[in-house]
Amino acid sequence: MKFHHVGVVVDKIDRYSTQIQNILKTGTASIPFEDKIQKVNVSFLDLGGIYLELIEPNQRQTPVTSFLKSSGGGLHHLAFEADDVYESVSELKQKGGKVVCEPAKGFEERLISFIFFESLPFKLVEVISKKKYN
Amino acid sequence: MKFHHVGVVVDKIDRYSTQIQNILKTGTASIPFEDKIQKVNVSFLDLGGIYLELIEPNQRQTPVTSFLKSSGGGLHHLAFEADDVYESVSELKQKGGKVVCEPAKGFEERLISFIFFESLPFKLVEVISKKKYN
Repeated sequence: MKFHHVGVVVDKIDRYSTQIQNILKTGTASIPFEDKIQKVNVSFLDLGGIYLELIEPNQRQTPVTSFLKSSGGGLHHLAFEADDVYESVSELKQKGGKVVCEPAKGFEERLISFIFFESLPFKLVEVISKKKYN
Repeated sequence: MKFHHVGVVVDKIDRYSTQIQNILKTGTASIPFEDKIQKVNVSFLDLGGIYLELIEPNQRQTPVTSFLKSSGGGLHHLAFEADDVYESVSELKQKGGKVVCEPAKGFEERLISFIFFESLPFKLVEVISKKKYN
């Protein structure tokens, strides 16, 4: 799997997007994508082929709400691009991961899935398909 | 600045290193480097030109101890390689950053510095020089 992005939870994308671009001199932010399954909006900042994904809740109860409330937001997960999401998710399950979100369409029409590992220090791994999944 | 690594705080590098290599299929871990200024040991896992830096305290009181105690460890900071660390740190100060660690020699003989941003969702940015700083 190829490292793709670091997920960063924020209360409002607008509050941080320009600030991060200015401080880290990243590429401009992508137009926020509304992920109806995850109930969040996400926007990407280009760090040179690796991305920062800013994630804001767009409903009261979302998969990132408790993290946001307990921590105030911040670094949340690592995401990896896989040739075959189903195969990679299956492998990760065999390695002790628990699927918290089965593969479903997300940003850029990609399949995305979240796997939780009690045995990893960062707990949450996202697996995504390559762009323009058919 | 060029994105270089994600810092991950752990209680023991040995506890996670092999596990992460197995799950994420990363490159093998570097031999841990003892950072006497930061009072930590660090080891790097290659994600394909971007690295995971595992950080463990090697003394009772270290810059990562409170984070480790409060969170149990996890994603901690983002690090960027700069052509001129002093110049980049100066720029980041002008942009509101507070220097929590002035540039000093760290892993791979690099100069490293930590800057805290109240205005960023991930708070802590590390600036490092390129390899083999003279």
